Amino acid sequence: MSDRPFTFDIPLPGVIPTRYDHHITRRLSEMVGYYADEQAFAAALAEKDETLYEVYEIRRPERAGELLHGVSIVHPGKIGNEYFMTKGHFHAVLETAEVYYCLQGEGYMVMETPEGECVVQPLRPNTVLYVPPRWAHRSVNCSDESDLATFFVYPGNAGHNYGSVAERGFRKRVVERDGRPQIIDNPRWRS
Amino acid sequence: MSDRPFTFDIPLPGVIPTRYDHHITRRLSEMVGYYADEQAFAAALAEKDETLYEVYEIRRPERAGELLHGVSIVHPGKIGNEYFMTKGHFHAVLETAEVYYCLQGEGYMVMETPEGECVVQPLRPNTVLYVPPRWAHRSVNCSDESDLATFFVYPGNAGHNYGSVAERGFRKRVVERDGRPQIIDNPRWRS
Repeated sequence: MSDRPFTFDIPLPGVIPTRYDHHITRRLSEMVGYYADEQAFAAALAEKDETLYEVYEIRRPERAGELLHGVSIVHPGKIGNEYFMTKGHFHAVLETAEVYYCLQGEGYMVMETPEGECVVQPLRPNTVLYVPPRWAHRSVNCSDESDLATFFVYPGNAGHNYGSVAERGFRKRVVERDGRPQIIDNPRWRS
Repeated sequence: MSDRPFTFDIPLPGVIPTRYDHHITRRLSEMVGYYADEQAFAAALAEKDETLYEVYEIRRPERAGELLHGVSIVHPGKIGNEYFMTKGHFHAVLETAEVYYCLQGEGYMVMETPEGECVVQPLRPNTVLYVPPRWAHRSVNCSDESDLATFFVYPGNAGHNYGSVAERGFRKRVVERDGRPQIIDNPRWRS
Protein backbone atom coordinates (compact mmCIF):
# COMPACT_ATOMS: atom_id res chain seq x y z
CA MET A 1 0.00 0.00 0.00
CA SER A 2 1.47 3.31 -1.08
CA ASP A 3 2.33 5.93 1.49
CA ARG A 4 2.16 8.60 -1.16
CA PRO A 5 -0.86 10.86 -1.75
CA PHE A 6 -3.31 9.69 -4.43
CA THR A 7 -6.51 10.84 -6.08
CA PHE A 8 -9.44 9.22 -7.82
CA ASP A 9 -12.69 10.48 -9.28
CA ILE A 10 -16.27 9.59 -8.52
CA PRO A 11 -17.96 10.28 -11.88
CA LEU A 12 -21.62 11.31 -11.62
CA PRO A 13 -23.95 9.69 -12.49
CA GLY A 14 -22.69 6.14 -12.12
CA VAL A 15 -20.58 6.84 -9.01
CA ILE A 16 -18.21 3.89 -9.53
CA PRO A 17 -14.88 5.30 -8.38
CA THR A 18 -12.06 5.29 -10.93
CA ARG A 19 -9.84 3.58 -8.37
CA TYR A 20 -10.71 1.05 -5.69
CA ASP A 21 -9.14 -1.96 -4.00
CA HIS A 22 -12.15 -4.03 -3.05
CA HIS A 23 -15.65 -4.39 -4.50
CA ILE A 24 -18.23 -5.94 -2.19
CA THR A 25 -21.60 -7.05 -3.57
CA ARG A 26 -24.31 -8.01 -1.12
CA ARG A 27 -27.03 -10.27 -2.49
CA LEU A 28 -30.46 -11.18 -1.19
CA SER A 29 -29.24 -14.64 -0.11
CA GLU A 30 -26.81 -12.99 2.34
CA MET A 31 -29.63 -11.05 4.02
CA VAL A 32 -31.65 -13.92 5.53
CA GLY A 33 -33.44 -12.68 8.64
CA TYR A 34 -32.95 -8.99 7.99
CA TYR A 35 -36.35 -8.20 6.45
CA ALA A 36 -39.61 -8.23 8.40
CA ASP A 37 -41.70 -9.95 5.73
CA GLU A 38 -40.20 -13.45 5.53
CA GLN A 39 -42.70 -14.68 2.95
CA ALA A 40 -41.94 -11.78 0.61
CA PHE A 41 -38.21 -12.43 1.17
CA ALA A 42 -38.54 -16.12 0.24
CA ALA A 43 -40.61 -15.29 -2.84
CA ALA A 44 -38.09 -12.66 -4.02
CA LEU A 45 -35.17 -15.03 -3.47
CA ALA A 46 -36.94 -17.84 -5.37
CA GLU A 47 -37.22 -15.49 -8.33
CA LYS A 48 -33.71 -14.00 -8.34
CA ASP A 49 -30.74 -13.65 -5.98
CA GLU A 50 -30.60 -9.94 -6.61
CA THR A 51 -27.72 -7.64 -5.65
CA LEU A 52 -29.10 -5.26 -3.02
CA TYR A 53 -26.04 -3.11 -2.45
CA GLU A 54 -22.40 -2.67 -3.36
CA VAL A 55 -19.41 -1.10 -1.68
CA TYR A 56 -16.23 0.13 -3.40
CA GLU A 57 -13.50 0.31 -0.78
CA ILE A 58 -10.15 2.04 -0.85
CA ARG A 59 -7.77 -0.01 1.31
CA ARG A 60 -5.58 1.68 3.89
CA PRO A 61 -3.68 0.26 6.86
CA GLU A 62 -6.21 -0.60 9.55
CA ARG A 63 -4.81 1.63 12.25
CA ALA A 64 -5.83 4.84 14.00
CA GLY A 65 -4.70 7.92 12.08
CA GLU A 66 -5.52 6.35 8.70
CA LEU A 67 -8.95 6.91 7.13
CA LEU A 68 -10.84 4.15 5.35
CA HIS A 69 -13.10 5.47 2.63
CA GLY A 70 -15.12 4.51 -0.41
CA VAL A 71 -18.49 4.57 -2.11
CA SER A 72 -21.62 2.72 -1.00
CA ILE A 73 -24.43 2.09 -3.48
CA VAL A 74 -27.83 0.76 -2.34
CA HIS A 75 -30.01 -0.22 -5.29
CA PRO A 76 -33.73 0.63 -5.45
CA GLY A 77 -36.26 -2.04 -4.53
CA LYS A 78 -38.36 -3.49 -1.71
CA ILE A 79 -38.93 -6.77 0.10
CA GLY A 80 -42.63 -6.60 0.83
CA ASN A 81 -43.04 -2.95 1.76
CA GLU A 82 -39.55 -2.62 3.26
CA TYR A 83 -36.95 -0.78 1.24
CA PHE A 84 -33.60 -2.24 0.19
CA MET A 85 -31.02 -1.50 2.88
CA THR A 86 -27.56 -2.42 4.09
CA LYS A 87 -27.04 -4.96 6.87
CA GLY A 88 -25.89 -2.21 9.20
CA HIS A 89 -23.22 -2.52 11.84
CA PHE A 90 -21.52 -1.09 14.88
CA HIS A 91 -17.83 -0.35 14.66
CA ALA A 92 -15.80 -2.99 16.50
CA VAL A 93 -13.99 -0.10 18.19
CA LEU A 94 -17.21 1.48 19.42
CA GLU A 95 -15.70 4.90 20.08
CA THR A 96 -15.17 5.70 16.38
CA ALA A 97 -17.29 7.96 14.18
CA GLU A 98 -18.15 7.95 10.46
CA VAL A 99 -18.88 10.74 7.98
CA TYR A 100 -21.15 10.27 4.96
CA TYR A 101 -21.54 12.60 2.00
CA CYS A 102 -24.55 11.76 -0.16
CA LEU A 103 -23.69 11.77 -3.87
CA GLN A 104 -26.94 10.62 -5.42
CA GLY A 105 -30.46 9.36 -4.70
CA GLU A 106 -32.62 9.62 -1.63
CA GLY A 107 -32.92 7.60 1.50
CA TYR A 108 -32.32 7.39 5.20
CA MET A 109 -29.65 6.41 7.67
CA VAL A 110 -31.04 4.41 10.59
CA MET A 111 -28.76 4.70 13.63
CA GLU A 112 -28.84 3.22 17.10
CA THR A 113 -26.76 3.12 20.27
CA PRO A 114 -26.08 -0.08 22.25
CA GLU A 115 -28.56 1.31 24.82
CA GLY A 116 -31.32 1.34 22.18
CA GLU A 117 -31.57 5.05 21.40
CA CYS A 118 -32.56 5.29 17.72
CA VAL A 119 -32.32 8.20 15.24
CA VAL A 120 -33.28 8.19 11.56
CA GLN A 121 -31.87 10.96 9.34
CA PRO A 122 -32.70 11.70 5.68
CA LEU A 123 -30.08 11.56 2.93
CA ARG A 124 -30.24 13.44 -0.34
CA PRO A 125 -27.55 14.76 -2.70
CA ASN A 126 -25.08 17.13 -0.97
CA THR A 127 -26.18 16.08 2.51
CA VAL A 128 -23.39 15.42 5.02
CA LEU A 129 -24.27 13.02 7.84
CA TYR A 130 -22.20 12.67 10.99
CA VAL A 131 -22.49 9.33 12.76
CA PRO A 132 -20.90 9.97 16.17
CA PRO A 133 -18.95 7.28 17.99
CA ARG A 134 -21.14 4.48 19.42
CA TRP A 135 -23.94 4.64 16.81
CA ALA A 136 -24.65 1.60 14.61
CA HIS A 137 -25.73 2.66 11.11
CA ARG A 138 -27.70 1.25 8.18
CA SER A 139 -28.53 3.05 4.95
CA VAL A 140 -31.91 2.62 3.27
CA ASN A 141 -32.80 3.55 -0.32
CA CYS A 142 -36.35 4.95 -0.49
CA SER A 143 -36.36 5.85 -4.18
CA ASP A 144 -38.24 3.65 -6.65
CA GLU A 145 -35.75 4.38 -9.41
CA SER A 146 -32.33 5.67 -8.38
CA ASP A 147 -29.40 4.19 -6.54
CA LEU A 148 -28.61 5.73 -3.16
CA ALA A 149 -24.90 6.54 -3.35
CA THR A 150 -22.78 7.85 -0.50
CA PHE A 151 -19.10 8.59 0.01
CA PHE A 152 -17.98 7.44 3.45
CA VAL A 153 -14.94 8.05 5.67
CA TYR A 154 -14.13 6.35 8.98
CA PRO A 155 -11.06 5.77 11.15
CA GLY A 156 -8.69 3.04 10.03
CA ASN A 157 -8.92 1.14 13.32
CA ALA A 158 -12.76 1.11 13.51
CA GLY A 159 -13.53 -2.41 12.28
CA HIS A 160 -17.04 -3.83 11.91
CA ASN A 161 -19.37 -5.59 14.29
CA TYR A 162 -22.40 -7.05 12.49
CA GLY A 163 -23.39 -9.45 15.22
CA SER A 164 -25.72 -7.51 17.47
CA VAL A 165 -27.58 -5.83 14.62
CA ALA A 166 -28.02 -9.20 12.89
CA GLU A 167 -29.45 -10.61 16.12
CA ARG A 168 -31.89 -7.94 17.12
CA GLY A 169 -32.16 -5.54 14.16
CA PHE A 170 -32.66 -1.82 14.52
CA ARG A 171 -35.50 -0.37 16.55
CA LYS A 172 -36.97 1.32 13.47
CA ARG A 173 -37.71 0.12 9.96
CA VAL A 174 -38.30 2.20 6.83
CA VAL A 175 -41.26 1.01 4.78
CA GLU A 176 -43.47 2.29 1.99
CA ARG A 177 -47.00 3.26 3.04
CA ASP A 178 -49.39 4.92 0.58
CA GLY A 179 -46.53 5.44 -1.86
CA ARG A 180 -44.31 7.28 0.66
CA PRO A 181 -41.53 6.24 3.01
CA GLN A 182 -42.60 5.86 6.60
CA ILE A 183 -40.51 5.13 9.68
CA ILE A 184 -42.15 2.51 11.88
CA ASP A 185 -41.28 0.55 14.99
CA ASN A 186 -39.68 -2.82 14.42
CA PRO A 187 -41.96 -5.31 16.18
CA ARG A 188 -39.11 -7.84 16.37
CA TRP A 189 -36.65 -5.49 18.08
CA ARG A 190 -35.43 -6.72 21.45
CA SER A 191 -33.67 -4.55 24.01
CA MET B 1 -21.63 19.30 21.68
CA SER B 2 -24.32 16.81 20.81
CA ASP B 3 -23.55 13.11 20.83
CA ARG B 4 -26.50 12.48 18.54
CA PRO B 5 -26.22 12.03 14.77
CA PHE B 6 -26.78 15.18 12.69
CA THR B 7 -26.92 16.23 9.06
CA PHE B 8 -26.33 19.40 7.10
CA ASP B 9 -26.33 20.29 3.43
CA ILE B 10 -23.65 21.77 1.22
CA PRO B 11 -25.76 23.58 -1.41
CA LEU B 12 -24.09 23.88 -4.83
CA PRO B 13 -23.09 26.39 -6.08
CA GLY B 14 -22.20 28.51 -3.09
CA VAL B 15 -21.00 25.62 -0.92
CA ILE B 16 -21.58 27.40 2.41
CA PRO B 17 -22.78 24.57 4.65
CA THR B 18 -26.22 25.00 6.22
CA ARG B 19 -24.67 24.22 9.60
CA TYR B 20 -21.26 25.08 10.97
CA ASP B 21 -19.66 25.98 14.29
CA HIS B 22 -16.72 28.11 13.23
CA HIS B 23 -16.05 30.33 10.22
CA ILE B 24 -12.39 31.19 9.59
CA THR B 25 -11.48 33.90 7.09
CA ARG B 26 -7.83 34.25 6.10
CA ARG B 27 -6.84 37.65 4.74
CA LEU B 28 -3.81 38.82 2.80
CA SER B 29 -2.38 40.53 5.91
CA GLU B 30 -2.17 37.14 7.65
CA MET B 31 -0.07 35.67 4.82
CA VAL B 32 3.08 37.79 5.12
CA GLY B 33 6.07 35.78 3.87
CA TYR B 34 4.06 33.08 2.12
CA TYR B 35 4.23 34.40 -1.46
CA ALA B 36 7.42 34.49 -3.52
CA ASP B 37 6.86 37.95 -5.01
CA GLU B 38 7.15 40.27 -2.01
CA GLN B 39 6.69 43.44 -4.07
CA ALA B 40 3.47 42.16 -5.62
CA PHE B 41 2.31 41.12 -2.14
CA ALA B 42 2.96 44.60 -0.69
CA ALA B 43 1.22 46.27 -3.63
CA ALA B 44 -1.83 44.01 -3.32
CA LEU B 45 -2.04 44.59 0.44
CA ALA B 46 -1.75 48.38 -0.02
CA GLU B 47 -4.76 48.22 -2.29
CA LYS B 48 -7.01 45.89 -0.24
CA ASP B 49 -6.69 43.38 2.58
CA GLU B 50 -8.51 40.78 0.57
CA THR B 51 -9.92 37.50 1.90
CA LEU B 52 -7.93 34.71 0.25
CA TYR B 53 -9.70 31.71 1.74
CA GLU B 54 -12.38 30.65 4.19
CA VAL B 55 -13.03 27.52 6.22
CA TYR B 56 -16.37 26.42 7.65
CA GLU B 57 -15.68 23.97 10.47
CA ILE B 58 -17.95 21.54 12.23
CA ARG B 59 -16.73 21.21 15.80
CA ARG B 60 -16.31 17.80 17.37
CA PRO B 61 -14.38 16.69 20.45
CA GLU B 62 -10.68 16.78 19.58
CA ARG B 63 -9.95 13.15 20.27
CA ALA B 64 -9.12 10.05 18.25
CA GLY B 65 -12.25 8.29 16.99
CA GLU B 66 -14.03 11.58 16.25
CA LEU B 67 -13.78 13.11 12.77
CA LEU B 68 -13.36 16.84 12.23
CA HIS B 69 -14.88 18.01 8.98
CA GLY B 70 -16.02 21.04 7.04
CA VAL B 71 -15.72 23.03 3.84
CA SER B 72 -12.67 24.93 2.61
CA ILE B 73 -13.07 27.69 0.00
CA VAL B 74 -10.04 29.24 -1.72
CA HIS B 75 -11.00 32.29 -3.76
CA PRO B 76 -9.57 32.95 -7.24
CA GLY B 77 -6.70 35.39 -7.59
CA LYS B 78 -2.92 35.72 -7.76
CA ILE B 79 -0.08 37.52 -6.00
CA GLY B 80 2.25 38.25 -8.87
CA ASN B 81 1.99 35.03 -10.87
CA GLU B 82 1.38 32.81 -7.82
CA TYR B 83 -2.15 31.57 -7.26
CA PHE B 84 -4.15 32.15 -4.09
CA MET B 85 -3.51 29.29 -1.68
CA THR B 86 -3.93 28.23 1.93
CA LYS B 87 -1.11 28.55 4.44
CA GLY B 88 -0.72 24.79 4.54
CA HIS B 89 0.18 22.74 7.58
CA PHE B 90 1.31 19.45 9.00
CA HIS B 91 -0.93 17.75 11.53
CA ALA B 92 0.41 18.18 15.05
CA VAL B 93 -0.07 14.42 15.43
CA LEU B 94 1.97 13.62 12.36
CA GLU B 95 0.61 10.08 11.94
CA THR B 96 -2.89 11.23 10.93
CA ALA B 97 -4.37 11.35 7.41
CA GLU B 98 -6.92 13.62 5.73
CA VAL B 99 -9.50 13.01 3.01
CA TYR B 100 -10.65 15.73 0.60
CA TYR B 101 -13.62 15.61 -1.76
CA CYS B 102 -13.58 18.41 -4.33
CA LEU B 103 -16.98 20.08 -4.64
CA GLN B 104 -16.26 22.89 -7.07
CA GLY B 105 -13.52 24.67 -9.03
CA GLU B 106 -10.07 23.57 -10.07
CA GLY B 107 -6.72 23.58 -8.39
CA TYR B 108 -3.98 21.57 -6.79
CA MET B 109 -2.99 20.14 -3.46
CA VAL B 110 0.71 20.61 -2.72
CA MET B 111 1.93 18.01 -0.21
CA GLU B 112 5.25 17.36 1.46
CA THR B 113 6.81 15.07 4.04
CA PRO B 114 9.12 16.27 6.82
CA GLU B 115 11.95 14.69 4.80
CA GLY B 116 11.19 16.97 1.84
CA GLU B 117 9.45 14.57 -0.54
CA CYS B 118 6.90 16.66 -2.47
CA VAL B 119 3.80 15.62 -4.48
CA VAL B 120 1.32 17.90 -6.26
CA GLN B 121 -2.08 16.45 -7.19
CA PRO B 122 -4.86 18.08 -9.24
CA LEU B 123 -8.31 18.77 -7.81
CA ARG B 124 -11.50 19.10 -9.82
CA PRO B 125 -15.17 18.43 -9.01
CA ASN B 126 -15.77 14.84 -7.80
CA THR B 127 -12.08 14.18 -7.18
CA VAL B 128 -11.22 12.43 -3.92
CA LEU B 129 -7.73 13.11 -2.59
CA TYR B 130 -6.09 11.02 0.12
CA VAL B 131 -3.40 12.78 2.13
CA PRO B 132 -1.64 9.93 4.01
CA PRO B 133 -0.25 10.42 7.49
CA ARG B 134 2.91 12.58 7.61
CA TRP B 135 2.14 14.76 4.54
CA ALA B 136 1.73 18.54 4.99
CA HIS B 137 -0.91 19.92 2.61
CA ARG B 138 -1.81 23.24 0.99
CA SER B 139 -4.61 23.83 -1.51
CA VAL B 140 -4.14 26.17 -4.46
CA ASN B 141 -6.90 27.64 -6.65
CA CYS B 142 -5.76 27.83 -10.28
CA SER B 143 -9.02 29.09 -11.76
CA ASP B 144 -9.34 32.74 -12.78
CA GLU B 145 -13.03 32.82 -11.92
CA SER B 146 -14.33 30.12 -9.57
CA ASP B 147 -13.79 29.32 -5.94
CA LEU B 148 -11.98 26.06 -5.21
CA ALA B 149 -14.23 24.30 -2.70
CA THR B 150 -13.42 21.05 -0.91
CA PHE B 151 -15.07 18.97 1.79
CA PHE B 152 -12.46 17.68 4.24
CA VAL B 153 -12.39 15.00 6.96
CA TYR B 154 -9.58 14.30 9.41
CA PRO B 155 -9.13 12.57 12.78
CA GLY B 156 -10.29 14.52 15.83
CA ASN B 157 -6.89 14.33 17.53
CA ALA B 158 -4.85 15.53 14.51
CA GLY B 159 -4.28 19.18 15.43
CA HIS B 160 -2.38 21.67 13.24
CA ASN B 161 1.29 22.56 12.96
CA TYR B 162 1.82 25.66 10.80
CA GLY B 163 5.32 26.42 12.03
CA SER B 164 7.63 24.49 9.74
CA VAL B 165 5.68 25.31 6.58
CA ALA B 166 5.63 29.01 7.54
CA GLU B 167 9.40 28.89 8.01
CA ARG B 168 10.52 27.07 4.90
CA GLY B 169 7.46 26.86 2.63
CA PHE B 170 6.75 23.92 0.34
CA ARG B 171 9.30 22.67 -2.15
CA LYS B 172 6.98 23.47 -5.07
CA ARG B 173 4.91 26.54 -5.97
CA VAL B 174 1.99 26.75 -8.39
CA VAL B 175 2.20 29.77 -10.70
CA GLU B 176 0.61 30.98 -13.91
CA ARG B 177 2.88 30.85 -16.98
CA ASP B 178 1.53 31.64 -20.46
CA GLY B 179 -2.01 31.56 -19.10
CA ARG B 180 -1.68 28.07 -17.60
CA PRO B 181 -0.83 26.71 -14.17
CA GLN B 182 2.71 25.43 -13.86
CA ILE B 183 4.41 23.69 -10.95
CA ILE B 184 7.86 25.13 -10.29
CA ASP B 185 10.60 24.70 -7.70
CA ASN B 186 10.46 27.11 -4.78
CA PRO B 187 13.83 28.88 -4.82
CA ARG B 188 13.45 29.80 -1.14
CA TRP B 189 12.80 26.24 0.04
CA ARG B 190 15.33 25.01 2.60
CA SER B 191 15.78 21.38 3.57
